Amino acid sequence: MTKVTAQLSVSLDGYYAGPQHDGDGDWLRSAESHGFFRVTRWATEAMAWRERQGFAGGRHDADSEIIAESFAAAGAYVMGRRMADGGEVPWGDEPPFRAPVFVVTHRPRPTLHRQGGTSFTYVTDGLASAVAQARAAAGEKNVAVAGGGSLVRQVLRAGLLDELELHVVPVVLGAGLRLFDDLGLDDFEAIELTPDRVVPSPQVTHIRYAVRGRAPLVLDDRGRGTGTP
Amino acid sequence: MTKVTAQLSVSLDGYYAGPQHDGDGDWLRSAESHGFFRVTRWATEAMAWRERQGFAGGRHDADSEIIAESFAAAGAYVMGRRMADGGEVPWGDEPPFRAPVFVVTHRPRPTLHRQGGTSFTYVTDGLASAVAQARAAAGEKNVAVAGGGSLVRQVLRAGLLDELELHVVPVVLGAGLRLFDDLGLDDFEAIELTPDRVVPSPQVTHIRYAVRGRAPLVLDDRGRGTGTP
Repeated sequence: MTKVTAQLSVSLDGYYAGPQHDGDGDWLRSAESHGFFRVTRWATEAMAWRERQGFAGGRHDADSEIIAESFAAAGAYVMGRRMADGGEVPWGDEPPFRAPVFVVTHRPRPTLHRQGGTSFTYVTDGLASAVAQARAAAGEKNVAVAGGGSLVRQVLRAGLLDELELHVVPVVLGAGLRLFDDLGLDDFEAIELTPDRVVPSPQVTHIRYAVRGRAPLVLDDRGRGTGTP
Repeated sequence: MTKVTAQLSVSLDGYYAGPQHDGDGDWLRSAESHGFFRVTRWATEAMAWRERQGFAGGRHDADSEIIAESFAAAGAYVMGRRMADGGEVPWGDEPPFRAPVFVVTHRPRPTLHRQGGTSFTYVTDGLASAVAQARAAAGEKNVAVAGGGSLVRQVLRAGLLDELELHVVPVVLGAGLRLFDDLGLDDFEAIELTPDRVVPSPQVTHIRYAVRGRAPLVLDDRGRGTGTP
């Protein structure tokens, strides 16, 4: 059955990039890019990522297998406008997705067909519509929320996400763009998840969660009762 | 050789408790306690924690073994004043530490001797002094920073921490007290760590890190070069 999944590389303190670039000057010199490069470096050094980008070499290890698995599981993608704009030139004529990509945007634009099976369809009637269109296109495979982090947050907040895999990178950035900000939770409410797979590697810890959804926070007796539930 | 270690239970979004209680009204009814209870519940249900508190029952599983190991490795503790004050009554005559505890505080107070090997020494000349006194008391064992989260942050910020074990609980709280705030990092600088053990369980993911220290954030060529460094 098709699931809506997301994968995101985050620092130990939950950032997927450094503090947001204000658009003035070179993004590559910004704190945003420095943080983003650090948390995604494990991927750019992995063979499975490099092969999709048309680069040679790279490590063939557990990290690379996680990337290969994510690509293989996705029948369609949902993507934020900022990521789609930023990737259009570097991804070139044959983008790494090899599947239909649905871009959430306010600006209408004709569908862009690329080589290797990738297409970009620009969806202007909202996130839920983009997810529904991706689901229809995904067949038996999953809908992967490609990012960026802001879109993953929106999908989580909207209750549309079934599975979240975090690639937890052993670095503390101290500031930046956070996955888990502004989720609309009140103080006595949380989003509960269940870890269903953990893959450790020297560079990153991959933790995959099933998203169970919102639940109230409750007190307990701090273990004074008769035992475990 | 003695290491300075810390263990802390945190939510997936990095909180060790809910938003700080303002001291007005019952802490147990506060958002702070609701968040704190959620992220520490795995421990209160574990046999090794319950045994130290004088409670029967509990699960004997990987989570419990992690707790037993932490208690066994600690020859002395460093603790924040707020945690020491909060625990004084509930811990009773025989606190769970069974080792000397050095409390970082501004208020002088005679050393408190409890049953079972626990003592509380109140250190008024700063964090580094408390760590040094605990190191002298620890013998061949480790100095464990018992918490709260604010003290763990201070020890990390001061470059005094050798090892950090996070118990990552699969819940998103959305707000609260964060371990990794206010570390004094600039935008192009990070704290690097190395994961040296990951223990998954259904309730929590235990990730132990060696703290390597501050390092500059650098750009790379996004994999276009000849391969991995």
